[in-house]
Amino acid sequence: MGLADRILNNDIRAAARLMRDIDDGLESAKAELKQLYPHTGKAYIIGITGPPGAGKSTLVDQITAEYRGQGKRVGVVAIDPTSPFTGGAILGDRIRMNRHAEDEGVFIRSLATRGALGGISHSTGDVVNVMDAMGMDVVIIETVGVGQDEIDIVRMAHTTIVIMVPGLGDDIQAIKAGILEIGDIFVVNKSDRDGADRTARELSVMLEMGHSRDSGWMPKVLMTEGNRGEGIKALVTECLAHKEYLLSSGALNKFIMEKNAVILMNMLKDGLFNEAFRIVSKNGKFDKMVQEITDHSSDPYTIVENTVKGLIVTNRN
Amino acid sequence: MGLADRILNNDIRAAARLMRDIDDGLESAKAELKQLYPHTGKAYIIGITGPPGAGKSTLVDQITAEYRGQGKRVGVVAIDPTSPFTGGAILGDRIRMNRHAEDEGVFIRSLATRGALGGISHSTGDVVNVMDAMGMDVVIIETVGVGQDEIDIVRMAHTTIVIMVPGLGDDIQAIKAGILEIGDIFVVNKSDRDGADRTARELSVMLEMGHSRDSGWMPKVLMTEGNRGEGIKALVTECLAHKEYLLSSGALNKFIMEKNAVILMNMLKDGLFNEAFRIVSKNGKFDKMVQEITDHSSDPYTIVENTVKGLIVTNRN
Repeated sequence: MGLADRILNNDIRAAARLMRDIDDGLESAKAELKQLYPHTGKAYIIGITGPPGAGKSTLVDQITAEYRGQGKRVGVVAIDPTSPFTGGAILGDRIRMNRHAEDEGVFIRSLATRGALGGISHSTGDVVNVMDAMGMDVVIIETVGVGQDEIDIVRMAHTTIVIMVPGLGDDIQAIKAGILEIGDIFVVNKSDRDGADRTARELSVMLEMGHSRDSGWMPKVLMTEGNRGEGIKALVTECLAHKEYLLSSGALNKFIMEKNAVILMNMLKDGLFNEAFRIVSKNGKFDKMVQEITDHSSDPYTIVENTVKGLIVTNRN
Repeated sequence: MGLADRILNNDIRAAARLMRDIDDGLESAKAELKQLYPHTGKAYIIGITGPPGAGKSTLVDQITAEYRGQGKRVGVVAIDPTSPFTGGAILGDRIRMNRHAEDEGVFIRSLATRGALGGISHSTGDVVNVMDAMGMDVVIIETVGVGQDEIDIVRMAHTTIVIMVPGLGDDIQAIKAGILEIGDIFVVNKSDRDGADRTARELSVMLEMGHSRDSGWMPKVLMTEGNRGEGIKALVTECLAHKEYLLSSGALNKFIMEKNAVILMNMLKDGLFNEAFRIVSKNGKFDKMVQEITDHSSDPYTIVENTVKGLIVTNRN
């Protein structure tokens, strides 16, 4: 039996193996993913993002426990910041959520942000598809930061939770504004800290200002204290409310179309580049281009223009 | 006279105009960039990165003042976190570095991190090229965060400064590890805060552990207090030391080749996708693909495979 068949038969080790193959960029993984795809689309996907130090991992752990208490199976994809040179994830699966380690209803996978052309959002989507096909009821995607990759990643989620903490410093206003529009639910974590109420109030005001009448969903600001598990039940209830809003308002279908468009664009971008680079690398052609840019005998704009013209044949399409 | 000619004649307004065209993705900008390219390669490029709240903007302001005191012309490219929907930069040029606003030797430009397929690292490279061709002696690129885009961006710099602050929280260990290898100089800012010495010691230990014998440059950890301008002179002196190391060791040439390879790959990726998407969007073809994924009548892996095969003709190359 192939990996996909074994995964559909609930073989956890086969799932782990396929995810490793995805991570390593093995070509063989694609056939398995094709076979799994018809079995996807059932999991409820939650995205969690926020700045470093906001306590995201602890909240993910608590949310997982809450869903487990409801008898749901939970998959977690944690995007870890990586060493750009060694390529390995830093936190790793090992030290994450030890208390769920023995629980067969929880499947945790860390993904490393990769080198220059790795396409983290691409492989995140693949891993979510595997968990979805495995029959996970809930898949949580956790990312650090506010970069474009992170925004692409949380866009895959049905419900996006943005975690903030009181008093993280100067840039925080900017970051708040940057992620205001991607959050369906906002959480001020470490609510026992000074300034938590003020942070929550500020957020609420900004959300009200930014709220457009076109959008039927008004994001709430909740308070949690991840370490003590406070506010978690209310947070999970709010996730359910958002999920029901998506279903009842008809927004779900529009959301899924938009999400699939973004996924397809990103995959197309990677696919085209990989094929093009394979061709262009032959016979030292690429190295010659780099040399020409370096000695200024040509410029990158002209080289890229000509290369694209040479590779993509417009007439046939 | 075209924009490029005017820029080469020191016309600041023409430079601002071209940067706006780059930001807007105008096709006409490419011809100007081609013309400017032979005049690039002279500026010394410094990259500054670190987590939100580390005080990067203040340090950039101080470093700029220090270089101005030495009579150098300074360009600053600040990558601001953006609203993914409105697309505008949040902090903006306006509120940045007011004290240099009247100084013709300083040129500041904020770039917004863009929507799904904007390619921020690509347009950053273009803007740096314009500043370089304008005759800026030093170009400082400032980014927030530790995402892949940010790593691509700081890779364009000759010298990368990583800013840390004491006590930013749980994820900080991970982030430290993630950016250890991209820093040429490390700075613990807000050195008056509790724990500054410990953060500096920890960083030094990690750097020593990670230092390979192959690399001739051993990054130092410096202390600054950006608000009061303390430690800035030493930081600029250390930049000079790193620049001289690059020149004297012969590492500079290898660095420029690698940097140009990354730039070329990213530009090729964007160029291929833009052309492909133009073709694939015709006659509702792309929308049909999204529909097929959504109703599970096909899967994205098969669609991308076939699209790439249809667009790129291997035999001719």
